[in-house]
Amino acid sequence: MTHTSEIEQVSVSRSFNGQQKVFKHRSNVLGCEMNFGVYVPDSVHIGKRPALLYLSGLTCTHANFIEKAGAQRFAAQYGFIIINPDTSPRGDNVPDKEDYDFGKGAGFYLDATEEPWAANYKMYSYITKELIDIVKRNFPIDPENFGIFGHSMGGHGAINIGLKHPEIFKSISAFAPACHPTNSNWGRKALSGYLGPDETKWAQYDSSLLAAKYSGPKRIILIDIGDDDSFLKSGELQPESLKSNNHLEIVYRSRAHYDHSYYFVASFMEEHFEHHAKEFQAQKLAKH
Amino acid sequence: MTHTSEIEQVSVSRSFNGQQKVFKHRSNVLGCEMNFGVYVPDSVHIGKRPALLYLSGLTCTHANFIEKAGAQRFAAQYGFIIINPDTSPRGDNVPDKEDYDFGKGAGFYLDATEEPWAANYKMYSYITKELIDIVKRNFPIDPENFGIFGHSMGGHGAINIGLKHPEIFKSISAFAPACHPTNSNWGRKALSGYLGPDETKWAQYDSSLLAAKYSGPKRIILIDIGDDDSFLKSGELQPESLKSNNHLEIVYRSRAHYDHSYYFVASFMEEHFEHHAKEFQAQKLAKH
Repeated sequence: MTHTSEIEQVSVSRSFNGQQKVFKHRSNVLGCEMNFGVYVPDSVHIGKRPALLYLSGLTCTHANFIEKAGAQRFAAQYGFIIINPDTSPRGDNVPDKEDYDFGKGAGFYLDATEEPWAANYKMYSYITKELIDIVKRNFPIDPENFGIFGHSMGGHGAINIGLKHPEIFKSISAFAPACHPTNSNWGRKALSGYLGPDETKWAQYDSSLLAAKYSGPKRIILIDIGDDDSFLKSGELQPESLKSNNHLEIVYRSRAHYDHSYYFVASFMEEHFEHHAKEFQAQKLAKH
Repeated sequence: MTHTSEIEQVSVSRSFNGQQKVFKHRSNVLGCEMNFGVYVPDSVHIGKRPALLYLSGLTCTHANFIEKAGAQRFAAQYGFIIINPDTSPRGDNVPDKEDYDFGKGAGFYLDATEEPWAANYKMYSYITKELIDIVKRNFPIDPENFGIFGHSMGGHGAINIGLKHPEIFKSISAFAPACHPTNSNWGRKALSGYLGPDETKWAQYDSSLLAAKYSGPKRIILIDIGDDDSFLKSGELQPESLKSNNHLEIVYRSRAHYDHSYYFVASFMEEHFEHHAKEFQAQKLAKH
């Protein structure tokens, strides 16, 4: 099934009614070797399948989601392929700041322009060009039913990339996303460090600002956040900054007593699969 | 709810309809500080709840099960409390061999008699006496509906302890258990190291040998093992050594293509909850 020279399978484990795989490949965009996870439901045997791309949060690798989110159960049930990349370039030759919120593990899904980051920290191009092409070539993904979701920094990435690329991603959801990075501590540190001090360059990576001018195909964005989330309380998430408009409906559900962890993510995983399935179905009906 | 001086809460996260907690306490039996996990479903508000004790496998701490097994969904659904201890004594003062299958992370749920292990490696007494008493004092566990299950080395522990203590544990199941340690590499290394060379002392910790002479209350033991499990293939598990008799029904399900990992465990977690619920119900009906 795979283009053998392009990606190499690192591991495979049967999980629910499908296979959880991990691949590695040389990324030309990032200038390093990268891992990503792919869950392949048994139903791929019947043809092209819907797919979801999941973006993880600060400090995560590809492994956290695979091990802790409990998504495989629903991917098997819905027959969805799931792709989940790492959160930054990796390797000894990649510069790092050794902060939890900058450098390795904290790529923020943007293309850095400042030195020494610009050579490797191109996660936006990696996701939207290189990785998407690779997974479409290697797995039977139905491009008409391809969604994006993520958690925390990855929720930022999912909304940001989803709004900029409706031609790729037909549905969007997020767990505890960082919605307004130009106005939060994590965001301002990352945006100034990777892009430099000119704040006009930051806006392209701010989901709230992108949402305000979004005029693409109608999207409903599902957002769940626990009301005991310490990063909500400290102002990193700012879900109130995301406003609905004629093209965009923000469905924000505050979840009593849940925190920022994967215990929270796993608790509502099923409902995010339902959301993406409904969005795919709604667009199919709208076409006919 | 807790006896404050006895256990201390380390963390709590809301997870599905309940709370995943971690506690630490000083173990007099093991001579060290220990962690254990407790999942408390919201339904504790309506009174004493059924409970399951889960024993983990080699190299695990209390954390692996909590993070990877996906049990909280079903614990909430069934209203079960789940207790999951660590796999060995811990701490700088506890001797270790730094092998993955002996010493820390590999307590084998037995009481060591050989030096230097005998002072701390008393996991059998820790589980069956100290920990059980602590959790019964601190959580609203219904002692008539208390089951035991586990994975790999912890499957060995669950069957072994479950068969020896029907007065505590009313139901038993296991994922990929080591069934016949007197006859496997892991087992012979652990039993000789912790108990010395006299093999007559080993039999008390061998589930297959215990099952052959079990004459307690009727038990159905559910066992799932993947047929792609490398430890099944290398002879560490030997499920065929466990025989049914008039008091014991072994339900062994070989699962095509699954391996030994938590991907496998999570895939069949729901069915183990069903099994314990049925065993509790069957015993309730038998009494009336």
